[in-house]
Amino acid sequence: MATRHIEAEQATLSIDKNAITTGPLPSSRKVHVKSDRMPDVAVAMREVDLEPSAGDPPVRVYDTSGPYTDPDVPINITRGLSSLRGDWILARGDVEAYDGRDVKPEDNGLKAGEALSVPVFDRADRQPLKAKPGKCVTQLEYARAGIVTPEMEYIAIRENLGREQALKEAAAERNGVKDGESWGAEIPDFITAEFVRDEIARGRAIIPSNINHPESEPMIIGRNFLVKINANIGNSAVSSSVAEEVDKLVWATRWGADNVMDLSTGQNIHTIREWIIRNSSVPIGTVPIYQALEKVDGIAEDLTWEVYRDTLIEQCEQGVDYFTIHAGVRLTHIPLTVDRVTGIVSRGGSILAKWCLSHHKENFLYTNFEEICHIMGQYDVAFSLGDGLRPGSIADANDKAQFAELETLGELRRIADSHNIQVMIEGPGHVPMHKIKENMDKQLEVCDEAPFYTLGPLTTDIAPGYDHITSGIGAAMIGWYGTAMLCYVTPKEHLGLPNRDDVKVGVVTYKIAAHAADLAKGHPAAQERDDAISKARFEFRWRDQFNLALDPETATEFHDETLPAEGAKIAHFCSMCGPKFCSMKISQEVRDAAAAQNFSTIIADAEEGMKSKSEEFKARGGEIYLPTGKTAAE
Amino acid sequence: MATRHIEAEQATLSIDKNAITTGPLPSSRKVHVKSDRMPDVAVAMREVDLEPSAGDPPVRVYDTSGPYTDPDVPINITRGLSSLRGDWILARGDVEAYDGRDVKPEDNGLKAGEALSVPVFDRADRQPLKAKPGKCVTQLEYARAGIVTPEMEYIAIRENLGREQALKEAAAERNGVKDGESWGAEIPDFITAEFVRDEIARGRAIIPSNINHPESEPMIIGRNFLVKINANIGNSAVSSSVAEEVDKLVWATRWGADNVMDLSTGQNIHTIREWIIRNSSVPIGTVPIYQALEKVDGIAEDLTWEVYRDTLIEQCEQGVDYFTIHAGVRLTHIPLTVDRVTGIVSRGGSILAKWCLSHHKENFLYTNFEEICHIMGQYDVAFSLGDGLRPGSIADANDKAQFAELETLGELRRIADSHNIQVMIEGPGHVPMHKIKENMDKQLEVCDEAPFYTLGPLTTDIAPGYDHITSGIGAAMIGWYGTAMLCYVTPKEHLGLPNRDDVKVGVVTYKIAAHAADLAKGHPAAQERDDAISKARFEFRWRDQFNLALDPETATEFHDETLPAEGAKIAHFCSMCGPKFCSMKISQEVRDAAAAQNFSTIIADAEEGMKSKSEEFKARGGEIYLPTGKTAAE
Repeated sequence: MATRHIEAEQATLSIDKNAITTGPLPSSRKVHVKSDRMPDVAVAMREVDLEPSAGDPPVRVYDTSGPYTDPDVPINITRGLSSLRGDWILARGDVEAYDGRDVKPEDNGLKAGEALSVPVFDRADRQPLKAKPGKCVTQLEYARAGIVTPEMEYIAIRENLGREQALKEAAAERNGVKDGESWGAEIPDFITAEFVRDEIARGRAIIPSNINHPESEPMIIGRNFLVKINANIGNSAVSSSVAEEVDKLVWATRWGADNVMDLSTGQNIHTIREWIIRNSSVPIGTVPIYQALEKVDGIAEDLTWEVYRDTLIEQCEQGVDYFTIHAGVRLTHIPLTVDRVTGIVSRGGSILAKWCLSHHKENFLYTNFEEICHIMGQYDVAFSLGDGLRPGSIADANDKAQFAELETLGELRRIADSHNIQVMIEGPGHVPMHKIKENMDKQLEVCDEAPFYTLGPLTTDIAPGYDHITSGIGAAMIGWYGTAMLCYVTPKEHLGLPNRDDVKVGVVTYKIAAHAADLAKGHPAAQERDDAISKARFEFRWRDQFNLALDPETATEFHDETLPAEGAKIAHFCSMCGPKFCSMKISQEVRDAAAAQNFSTIIADAEEGMKSKSEEFKARGGEIYLPTGKTAAE
Repeated sequence: MATRHIEAEQATLSIDKNAITTGPLPSSRKVHVKSDRMPDVAVAMREVDLEPSAGDPPVRVYDTSGPYTDPDVPINITRGLSSLRGDWILARGDVEAYDGRDVKPEDNGLKAGEALSVPVFDRADRQPLKAKPGKCVTQLEYARAGIVTPEMEYIAIRENLGREQALKEAAAERNGVKDGESWGAEIPDFITAEFVRDEIARGRAIIPSNINHPESEPMIIGRNFLVKINANIGNSAVSSSVAEEVDKLVWATRWGADNVMDLSTGQNIHTIREWIIRNSSVPIGTVPIYQALEKVDGIAEDLTWEVYRDTLIEQCEQGVDYFTIHAGVRLTHIPLTVDRVTGIVSRGGSILAKWCLSHHKENFLYTNFEEICHIMGQYDVAFSLGDGLRPGSIADANDKAQFAELETLGELRRIADSHNIQVMIEGPGHVPMHKIKENMDKQLEVCDEAPFYTLGPLTTDIAPGYDHITSGIGAAMIGWYGTAMLCYVTPKEHLGLPNRDDVKVGVVTYKIAAHAADLAKGHPAAQERDDAISKARFEFRWRDQFNLALDPETATEFHDETLPAEGAKIAHFCSMCGPKFCSMKISQEVRDAAAAQNFSTIIADAEEGMKSKSEEFKARGGEIYLPTGKTAAE
């Protein structure tokens, strides 16, 4: 195999294993919640231990960080992660290993004879899997056959955050009354594997789970589950260290990315992708047209279906979990973009528009859509139907081009669905607040409730440098309205490549948006963390407040900027107001005073006083307009 | 006078005038738009010059930065700003100068004999003004008398952003159809001084404009105007440089703060406040109970109406434009807070609750409310009726305590209104998204459409270190729903004192929220800046993109991190996607191609092709379920 050949040549390229960020978050432990019904399903979660004075059990939180935060698991990126789902996949008996496609120089953007500048990932003992002839191996296929897969069981436990007891008690307390406005989403009090299966079967949720990415921990994207976020990573021109590329992934998931898209371009992309997938515990998405374009030297007109198809198979075999495919950019839509302020801002969309115009032909992704379905069904790669015509400015939001494409995406979703291929739909972009809900409503309607996956949206164009915020606003709102996954935007959007800090800020901002949406939708498990942190705040358990935060490091650092002393961590005030003005301290004094007093007596006294005051007011009658100027002269 | 006495003692304390941030923003000029009807009204605005290739006139933007960004105005903080409104105030003939209250050592938190550690502001030639006996000198009084004041005329021009012509043309183009959802707000296409007057007269808007702060540039807070933002500043324990305190104000307004609240506590506060007001071109708000509490050595129980009343007069004479007054915290509300997760989180609210409980008495601000009205009417200080019982956590949002207080604020608003005192109402706090609108709706209802002024709200509790974002989401939404002014939250909220960077991030985040709200409400002038920046982006006018941004410095810095070369500022790509993948570049090629081709021919060709494709699909009939596995095996 070509892969093995390259390996030998590249053995001397070094890998800095220390570049990977590992270790638990502060005061946190990895726990594994076991399934009662499937003995080999154990769901990784994080538990945050509280100070003893809290008198509360540890707080469990959803954990996307994989084994990297588990000190018990040795990390070796040259080996990759262990195969969590391998046995489950094989046990279904519908896949077979095969030799797979040879890796070609052009897969890495190389001319014949050019050498890779990064080491290859040693997959000597791995062959790709694909469906046995005539089989479709998607989770959707299984769900429609009534099968509860281990993936579905894993997700059920994961979505409940291991809070079975608390959830059941809370549900009983609420007595059927829910807090939240779900806009038609139907989030149950308690997620069962059967509910997961039914949502998949209805096409309202997807489990991105390529059979060639068994390292991934199952997760679900759907309106009736916790809102998820995606982080984009990609190689930069100046860096070719594979460890650095893997660390981008690890870093994004450490802070909460549920999915990662590898948007690498240029040289080495096949190899870098292999490193990423083999070391990823979250699903990986790509935009195959980027690699296909590299293979034709960046000339959009030279793209062919054959090159694209070969790229799809290449990436299916590597284990990519979902593909952004811009099959909705139809030739007839292109004229609708001509009068836009910002034309076509999707890279894939603009590439395909150029191809269509050059050839006077319909988009080859549209005309070959069923064949794409056939390919993806053999590996369980999900569609992320790309919104190549999303608006790139407030002026272009919700315009004819955008909605014409959305209608096409609905049509394509139905075709994919008829093949039992999982589908989500990509959404905008730049949209002012009052036009956000229309996006969600129309998407639900024309795409038969397929999960929506939006980029932001950005609610104004005027703040480059702060587009994590302009878009975090829109993301929280559209997440509330029903979007299942939010694609992050970093502070560098429109300006440059995000660095490590930008990725973290982008991820945390989107965790905020997703969590705010969960709260507003009335997700039964969401508010537990808010309550825990607020209680810690009120009780001056500073360390608990930091540790329960989405970003404990920044919270601690900001606090310590003004009060670095260890003693300040137990102080009953902070530097904002100081000891004399601390409302929480005074409020606790009020509470103590109330406990020592008889409130009803106080109020009766007060009401008596008020009554006479009120009578006095009435007695004054029209004198409510007392001449001004009197008081100060006294 | 006591003031003069202290001056002599303090003459040796130095002032670092260089500490003040001055100078225009990049590519920006200060312009003054003159009134046609009032010759001495000229409204300061900022014009951003575009690159010649744009072929567009400069973009005018709302400018809160005052003379500090005008290179033609010499800045000397020991003199203060010139008196913009002084003649207007005197011309009305209803005020008189008087000696004013003596400054006492306790005003600065000093014991008798202790010396100030900051220099006093030399106001030797200034006497405070107050209303002549029997007069009320509020803008509300004038509005109800049918008078258009110069302040109202200034505001009308300011709110239109000097875009008279553009606005009129845009209105004609829209032909009565508006883009936006205003939730009942009635924003006209074009703001006239009469409209300003009528909104003031209806109590739906206020102009904070103490007659003793003539340095301020008139601005309006109301639902039918541009959404405003407030920044809080305050002395820190470690710093006593007055120049540094003044620079906090200047810095916040440079980035767009429409109002600034001085929340200083501790020593020197009277003197620092004087420095701030004399150098402020924006209205200044305070929370007088903070200073009153200092005067009784921080012991809430020792507060008296007399101390508080004296503090009000002290601050009225200095020129504070609005007071946060927690008169709505009634004794009977306190028991409603006992079961809260975070009790009472407003400093003022907790102080007053403690006072009420200690004395078994009704809040003295409530019982003396009419006298407070009498005082404020003599100086035109506006009420900001404080929400002392705002929720401090998601768990406590929209609870009985909060809404009981809101009802009381409505009652107090009607009393103040009957005295012709301007009123706005403070709002929360911590509120999940689905409970935000209820806050706005209830406030409009029970407070007779008085302007709402909210702190955020924060949409989740779990992200200390990022509360500018958790709250920016809520602020944008409540701004859209109708909140007139948004009080900023910095990244340090809950953790420590904001530094200079935090203040800037807080202000810019809230400018985003306010602007996103303006867009969504359909404010006719709002989208012009979005369109200008998006056009610049599409045309690769990088410098224009930076200069039109809310924060040109950060935008430039982020871009230059990866592409610092001067040539990159004219490149038709950026480091995000590189030249080969730039969607905007390809999109322009698409546009060029479209211009060169006959689109209708292309589409006819394509549709013909589609028709046959479609017929082919139909002909296949039930074969839509082709066996999977076929394609890849080929």
